[in-house]
Amino acid sequence: MNIKIKWLRDQLKTQNLQGMIVSNPVNVRYLIGVEAEGILLITLKENLFITDSRYTEAVNTVLTIEDEILVVDKKTLSKEEYAAFFMYCENVGFEENFVTYADYKEYLQTFRVNLMETEDIIEKQRSIKDEKEIQYIEKACEITDKCFEHLKKFIRIGMTEKEIAFEIEKFYKTNGADDVSFAPIVASGHNSSMPHAVPGTRKIKDGDIVLIDMGCKYNGYCSDMTRVLFINYMEDEFKEAYDICLRNNEMAERDIREGRNMKSIAQNSNNHLKEYGFIPLHSLGHGVGLDIHEEPFFGIVYDQMLKENMVITVEPGAYKAGQFGIRIEDTVLVTKMGINRLTKTSKDPTIVICD
Amino acid sequence: MNIKIKWLRDQLKTQNLQGMIVSNPVNVRYLIGVEAEGILLITLKENLFITDSRYTEAVNTVLTIEDEILVVDKKTLSKEEYAAFFMYCENVGFEENFVTYADYKEYLQTFRVNLMETEDIIEKQRSIKDEKEIQYIEKACEITDKCFEHLKKFIRIGMTEKEIAFEIEKFYKTNGADDVSFAPIVASGHNSSMPHAVPGTRKIKDGDIVLIDMGCKYNGYCSDMTRVLFINYMEDEFKEAYDICLRNNEMAERDIREGRNMKSIAQNSNNHLKEYGFIPLHSLGHGVGLDIHEEPFFGIVYDQMLKENMVITVEPGAYKAGQFGIRIEDTVLVTKMGINRLTKTSKDPTIVICD
Repeated sequence: MNIKIKWLRDQLKTQNLQGMIVSNPVNVRYLIGVEAEGILLITLKENLFITDSRYTEAVNTVLTIEDEILVVDKKTLSKEEYAAFFMYCENVGFEENFVTYADYKEYLQTFRVNLMETEDIIEKQRSIKDEKEIQYIEKACEITDKCFEHLKKFIRIGMTEKEIAFEIEKFYKTNGADDVSFAPIVASGHNSSMPHAVPGTRKIKDGDIVLIDMGCKYNGYCSDMTRVLFINYMEDEFKEAYDICLRNNEMAERDIREGRNMKSIAQNSNNHLKEYGFIPLHSLGHGVGLDIHEEPFFGIVYDQMLKENMVITVEPGAYKAGQFGIRIEDTVLVTKMGINRLTKTSKDPTIVICD
Repeated sequence: MNIKIKWLRDQLKTQNLQGMIVSNPVNVRYLIGVEAEGILLITLKENLFITDSRYTEAVNTVLTIEDEILVVDKKTLSKEEYAAFFMYCENVGFEENFVTYADYKEYLQTFRVNLMETEDIIEKQRSIKDEKEIQYIEKACEITDKCFEHLKKFIRIGMTEKEIAFEIEKFYKTNGADDVSFAPIVASGHNSSMPHAVPGTRKIKDGDIVLIDMGCKYNGYCSDMTRVLFINYMEDEFKEAYDICLRNNEMAERDIREGRNMKSIAQNSNNHLKEYGFIPLHSLGHGVGLDIHEEPFFGIVYDQMLKENMVITVEPGAYKAGQFGIRIEDTVLVTKMGINRLTKTSKDPTIVICD
């Protein structure tokens, strides 16, 4: 049987659960490598993936006998068969942070068991990456570094944010990535003050800040990076903010290692920003994996320890509302001694000369 | 106050609800035109959008005083303030098909009211489009028609499915669409037998079927269309299946008009496919709007009447597992007398001559 299912079964035993319903498709992919609509039922005796006829053919090409997972078309199942799946189970886990209230009620009726909250058990396990997962994220970061090098030569005065965002998507799709890991943010001039700006028709001008937040997926695993470019020259006010943001980023990265408390690192980062009059508008970072935002969440409200082989972002931002914003973001691997920076792009302030 | 909020308030009154929590961001966008993380609280007296600091600046540029919606940063709210929002409300609606079980429990604690299921009240209203919404979908369909014309000239033997899928994305982004409405399906040869095939590295060959299912968004509103192309010639078996699928599509479209039962149209379509030995693998169609799949769902399990100004797809498919598949899909507007076909691309079998 696959090693991740084995791990999950062991976990269930320690929590007095005799089974689990896995509904989140990202968790299903993590556990059995399958991308399809459906639910995975784990018991201590057998594993079933209930899907529909649109997917059965594709799913059967991915799973092997060694996976020990039975694929079933939901249309072929009777009410009695559904109720029989957890026949010898008293308590069955479900994903309370994914399953809707309506689905919860339906599961109760269908499976006739006690449904127990599982507190993101799979998501928490996903935060610790294995060797292969790290390789995939490394590769996604490498493609992102190359994309940024390309953009430095690509950007011209008069281009719109949208055009640059599209070039990012094109680069990823023609340079070995599966896809973008999220819609790229290209925010120029005063738009850079909005952390979640949507690329629009504003044209790049002389002296602009161009904030670029982008990432791609490689074998399903994400990268995430933010850099800002300065067009032809750098105003003093921007330079000051850049230096503060860069020092903040470096300070945080120096503090990261196994066993350190994330809340206190994030608190230090926020305090440092506030000292210079910047109001922190978002968390310091987040885990990266099959999801672009996943456990661990790295901010002042999450009182958690860093663990070896977590992959997280470090992305402090210095924003002046309505005026400008600077954000510097790396994807890093947490080690026993510190970090392994998976984002290799330089963090020196970058002025691009263009006409 | 905006007309959609007024409508919702009237609905709440008829259901003995004194307020509603709108959590689904697509419903929030439908009601107040805002794209941001947050929840919209409607009471009979006031409307609040609770968001966070990443979005407040952007949201305030969209909303006007006439909207009568107060924008609040969630970090500034105390427990008491949360509990006070629905102070004079006994029953408050929530979206049981969107809200997770965990959020449901949190809403109960935070708002201290009776939470009542609302049975997709907003989604149902979204299924009936107003003039502006129809214009947007029409425009999205028009761009999709143009994209297909472009593809007929673009495709060459030896190209991969992925390359064609990327060209679709590029065309949309450079021809006035916001974005794709879903990841395009380009399935060639035997891959076409899987309704949800993911474009891969298979190369287009002489005599291939190339099934293309694609759509874009215009001002947030989606289009959806499927056509198949035949490369240089058309095998007899494919021609037969194509004719059956086309007759099926035309038969269904002829039956569509206000007041007709969707289940019986879908049943007729399925029976016709089965008569010729094809097993129906998916529903006949679905509503299209801000979501690519939305109400009404158009299949044999949905016993509902068609209404004027619904926009739906009609997409029967004839599949031979592991061998090939044909699907022909239009986006159509339901009228009192029949349909207005928003997809204008011809449904004649199309052979492209290429080398």
